This record gives sequence, structure tokens and C-alpha cells, in this order.
Amino acid sequence: MPTSNALDRFYSVIPAGGIGSRLWPLSRADAPKFLHDLTGSGQTLLRDTWDRLSPISGDQRIMVVTGRAHRAAVEAQIPELADPNVVLESEPRDSTAAIGLAAAILEKREPGVIIGSFAADHVIKGPTLFRAVVREAIAAADAGYIATIGIQPTEPAIGFGYIKGAAALDIPGAPSALTVDSFVEKPNLQTAKRYLAQGRYLWNAGMFISRADILLEEIGKNEPELLAGLLELAEAWDTPARGAVVDRVWPTLKKIAIDYAVAEPAAAAGRLAVIPGPFDWDDVGDFASIAKLHSGGRKRDLAILGEGARVLADSSSGIVVSHTGRMIALVGVDDIIVVDTPDALLVTTSANAQKVKSVVDALKLSGSSDVL
Amino acid sequence: MPTSNALDRFYSVIPAGGIGSRLWPLSRADAPKFLHDLTGSGQTLLRDTWDRLSPISGDQRIMVVTGRAHRAAVEAQIPELADPNVVLESEPRDSTAAIGLAAAILEKREPGVIIGSFAADHVIKGPTLFRAVVREAIAAADAGYIATIGIQPTEPAIGFGYIKGAAALDIPGAPSALTVDSFVEKPNLQTAKRYLAQGRYLWNAGMFISRADILLEEIGKNEPELLAGLLELAEAWDTPARGAVVDRVWPTLKKIAIDYAVAEPAAAAGRLAVIPGPFDWDDVGDFASIAKLHSGGRKRDLAILGEGARVLADSSSGIVVSHTGRMIALVGVDDIIVVDTPDALLVTTSANAQKVKSVVDALKLSGSSDVL
Repeated sequence: MPTSNALDRFYSVIPAGGIGSRLWPLSRADAPKFLHDLTGSGQTLLRDTWDRLSPISGDQRIMVVTGRAHRAAVEAQIPELADPNVVLESEPRDSTAAIGLAAAILEKREPGVIIGSFAADHVIKGPTLFRAVVREAIAAADAGYIATIGIQPTEPAIGFGYIKGAAALDIPGAPSALTVDSFVEKPNLQTAKRYLAQGRYLWNAGMFISRADILLEEIGKNEPELLAGLLELAEAWDTPARGAVVDRVWPTLKKIAIDYAVAEPAAAAGRLAVIPGPFDWDDVGDFASIAKLHSGGRKRDLAILGEGARVLADSSSGIVVSHTGRMIALVGVDDIIVVDTPDALLVTTSANAQKVKSVVDALKLSGSSDVL
Repeated sequence: MPTSNALDRFYSVIPAGGIGSRLWPLSRADAPKFLHDLTGSGQTLLRDTWDRLSPISGDQRIMVVTGRAHRAAVEAQIPELADPNVVLESEPRDSTAAIGLAAAILEKREPGVIIGSFAADHVIKGPTLFRAVVREAIAAADAGYIATIGIQPTEPAIGFGYIKGAAALDIPGAPSALTVDSFVEKPNLQTAKRYLAQGRYLWNAGMFISRADILLEEIGKNEPELLAGLLELAEAWDTPARGAVVDRVWPTLKKIAIDYAVAEPAAAAGRLAVIPGPFDWDDVGDFASIAKLHSGGRKRDLAILGEGARVLADSSSGIVVSHTGRMIALVGVDDIIVVDTPDALLVTTSANAQKVKSVVDALKLSGSSDVL
């Protein structure tokens, strides 16, 4: 366990930014993935995320970084969200800018703060295990590491990046923490099977926990201009100058994922620790993974989402998302994905689920922004 | 050519009955197949059928047999349709009852009339060739035969029945007429290929042309009770008793296709003549055949039907029928069939197109008649 002092200094950060293009037409610019209930829990992924973190941080110590357009929806989902804990982006600048800005604001308000960033739109089962692992990560952060949580793989997934854990770090309060040998990109199936057999590879779930000053320092090593921008923003954030500085600086920030700006260089320098997470996790990145989530892995089950869905299907597997109440009949189509919304319909297969993003790109190009 | 006398005695009959269950959810109880434009001609199949027959019969000599529920729609399609030429069924009793009733009514009104029955929902290209063949059939009918038109096959179709032609009949005005060796049910692909190679097999398009009295006589030989019912109906038809007799007799009539009640026995007895039809014909019985009709046989073309359709598809083939104006995106699905209507959506494949009827059956069983 981390020292109570470290836990007291902990702040959760929820970047709620991505639209989830591979979940079109369910996810839209005005209804991004984190505002949907994809698990059947009865509440949105964002709310699930909040409820998972609240017992660790307390409601007063969770910051949400989201787009201006989503402010009302986010606040409706989380009435507990304190006004200073809402950070609005005028436009998306990728994860380093989002998390780095939160780190810079919080470090200025509260030097020595430890932050943990957790995506608003992932699914985790086993909140108690999750929190135990986060507490280990906080202890590792308190010891000066940038800590990440690597999910113990349950299958040879090819949709995730992997983290190769190495030696035990022996950090007080973080007995599971390992040094990180390397980050590896999404593998092919053969490689993924090898990773699974070797047992030292963990899924990269994009969760990072560290002292804010150390995170910023790491950003500065690799992206000094980006850090300068973030510090300028943080300096003005709680002053009347915020609006003008945001308008001037935010659009100039380099778009770069935190994996590249921080995690990989830190791993190479031995400053990264990974805590294996023995809980169920999924980034529900496409409809195939939602189908899998709902079928519990049973191949012949057709998952059906949507209130009042009317589906008539023969032996089909796959997923139907119904937001219209129309009768949907599927005949002789296997591993099918049908997403039925009032103004747009998607028909694809599990094998093509990742390609849905290309539809969004094509719709943009063809000027069909009314359905984006 | 038939004698002008025979042509003068000719009457076209259009049974407009079938819903076209394999075309659900496009075809419905209240919008059956014959009321749709499936060819892109800009008008319904019924209207196409009328326009094809009008130059032979004249507008005053075409009778339409349809369901009571479709009267208004039929009359809207064909303002030329004379009131005495509308025969309304209180419920469907299959083709022998429909065509037999028309024959009995017309024979009573005009003894010696020659009738030709032509489905309201088939597609024919080449109206001039079609009419030349019908004229030969009228000549054969005038000579005392029950004549049928057999379509010269262009491919080894397995969705149609076949008629095996035999010897030339040498009928004045019907030089192409052949005796009929046999009717054969829908073959498998191997058999269909053999038929095509042998060259004597024609597609059974369900077109029958004969003297009304001979048709009725033939019905009487095989289905004497059905004939008695038809004659009773015809006797009362043009009198105030019609309503009462229809209510009493029509529901008792045996449901049997004219192929079984008339054509096959007549062929066996040497009373059937077949005229080969060298024109394009299709019964557009399912969405796969509509797709084929629109793609002109090009395998990689996606056919799109529906005004204002918005379809975004990658290399898919198949057919999209859009009656909603929604954006329809297809990703990585080949030979796909998507039929998008305001209250029902069908997703299937060309290979499963024939199974769509089973959806309609299942919807009936499950009490979902609102979408039938």
C-alpha cells in the first residue's frame, strides 16, 4: 500500500475526448463513445469510470478533460463534478496535451500531487481488484516512477499494444511492480500467441500514474515546446487570462499520444514501472469487442443492444444495436454487425469492425457531416 | 398470325394477387410486389404489365383479378381499367380460382372468348417480341390448344420450373408452337445445366392462353367441384346476387395452382402447346433476382433502389433498397441484401434470398403483424 500521505495526494484524471469513430453510427461527434452504455450496466462508460475512481480519489479529486461541446453532457452524467475539475479543450490535441494540461494545472494548485489518468470509455470488471492495483501504482508513483497498469492477457488479442514486464522492483506498497522491458505495438496473431505463452507480456491499457512534476519533466525531455505551452496554460488557468491564453496557445500544441511522448522514452530510461492488473478490461474499441463483451465469448450468440429492440434472426452471431425500435430481420448472416440509428445504418461483419473508421473518413470527405 | 377473328376475341387477364413474401419488407400485405417499381422503369410492375398487354387487347379487354384490399391502389395505377373488368377476391384462393373465375365470367359474357393470363409482377424486356409470341399463342388457342409461353433460358436457372418442348405442331399463325413433353419442377444446378445444353427446355413463366371454355373444361376434368363453384360465381357475377354468392362460394374453392389443375394434365393429354419466348423474362421472385436485374449480371455491382438513397459501400456486391433516406454504410459485406423501410429492416445475402419468406412466417407466428 502507498503511504496514506501518497493516497491523500492522489488525483484522478479522466480524459474524455475520443469520439470512437470505429463505433459509428452509434458514436457521433455529439454523442461520443464515453456517453454510451455499451455494457448494459444502465449507465454510461464515463459514469462507470467515475464510480470506479471515486472510492480512491473522493469525488472532489477527480478531474475531467473533455471537449467544450460535451460540457453539458458530462456535467449531466456527473452532478458531483466540481467546477474547477472541468478542463475544457477547444479542440482535440491528443492525450499528451490533455493529460499534461491536467498535470500542470494540478501541480500548480497543489505541488507534489500524484495523478492517475484513466480513459473515460474503457470497460473494467472487478472494481475492487482494480483499486488495489491503482493503490500499488500510487505507491510506485510516490517512489518516483511513472507507473502504468498492464492488463494480464486472457487471450492472444491483436487489437491491443503490449507491455513487456521485466524484473521485480521491490517498491514498498507496490509488491507487484515490475520494470518495463519494452512497449510493443499491436502484434499479429502468431506473435500474440507467443506473448501469451511467455507470460511476461501485458496489455497496454493506457493508464498512467505518476507525480505530476515527474510527468511534466518527462514531457519536457521529449517535447520541450509542448511542455512550455502546457506550463503557460497552467499559469493562466485559474486567472482571468485563461480564455485568451487558451485561444492563443492550445491550438499550437503538438498532437502526440502520451505513449510516445512519455511512456516509451521513460521505459527506455528505466523510469517506468508496470503493475500487472489481474482484472477484466476492454477498450471496447469496435463493435466486435462489444459483441464479445455481451456474448461472454460464446460464439453463437447474437448480442442485442438498445431499448425496445425487435430482432428476428436465425442462427446469426454478431451484434445488433437498435436505436429505432424497427423490426430487424437477419437471415443467414453470421458474425454480422448491424447498427440501426434514426439517420444512419451500418452493416458490416466482426472481421471488418476495425474498418468502420474508414466510413467516417469517407463521410467527411463526401460532405455528409449531418450523420457524423 | 392468328385470324383477326381470334385476335378480336382475345381478352387479357392479369391475376394481381401474390404479396411476394420473399420481397419482405418491401412487399407487404398492403403494398404487394405488383405495386412496386422493381426495374427502375418509373412505374409499377402492374402498370408495366398493363402497358405490355394493352396494344394486343386494347384497354377495354384487360381484366384484373385482385384482392379487395388492393382495389384502390390498382385503380390508381390503371385509370383506364373499366369497372366490369375488376374482379375482387375476398381472400386469395390460388391461381386456378383466380384465372378460372375470370374465364367463367368472360365466357358467360362473350361465348368463345380467348383469354391469356399474365402475372402482374413479372418483368419482361422486349415488348414487341413478347406480343409476337402472344399472337402465336392466340393462334394456338384458336386451334383448340391450351397454349403456354416458355421462355428460352439464358442460363442454368434453378429458381424456375421448366417445360420440355417436343415436336412442332404446325398450327397456322403459330409456326413456333411445339407439343409439350413434360413440366419439370425447379432443378438442381447440374440438371439445369443439362437442360440448357439440350436446348429443348424452356422456363415456365406461368402464362396460359386458351379458349375460356376449353380452360374451364380442363379444370372440370381434374377439379369438378372447383369448376362448379366457378360456374356458380360466374352465373351470379353480373347480377345483384353476386355479393351473397361470393360470400358463400368463394371461401369454399380449392386452393390449387393452375399448373397442377390444368397445365400438367393437359400436357400429359397432348392438349398443351408451348410457344418459345425469345425475350428477357424474370419473375423477380427474390432480392437476388432484383439485384441481378439491376446489375445486368455484373457480379461486382451493388444495385441501389429507392429515391434519395444514400449509400456508402466498399467493394460490396448485392442490393440495397432504401425507402428511408437514411445513410446506409456497408463495410466488407459481399453479396449483401439490405432492405431499409421505415418500420422494418432486412439484412441477408443473395444466397439466402429465398429464405426471406421464412421471416414472414416467423413474424406471423410471433404476432408481429404490424410489419407484415
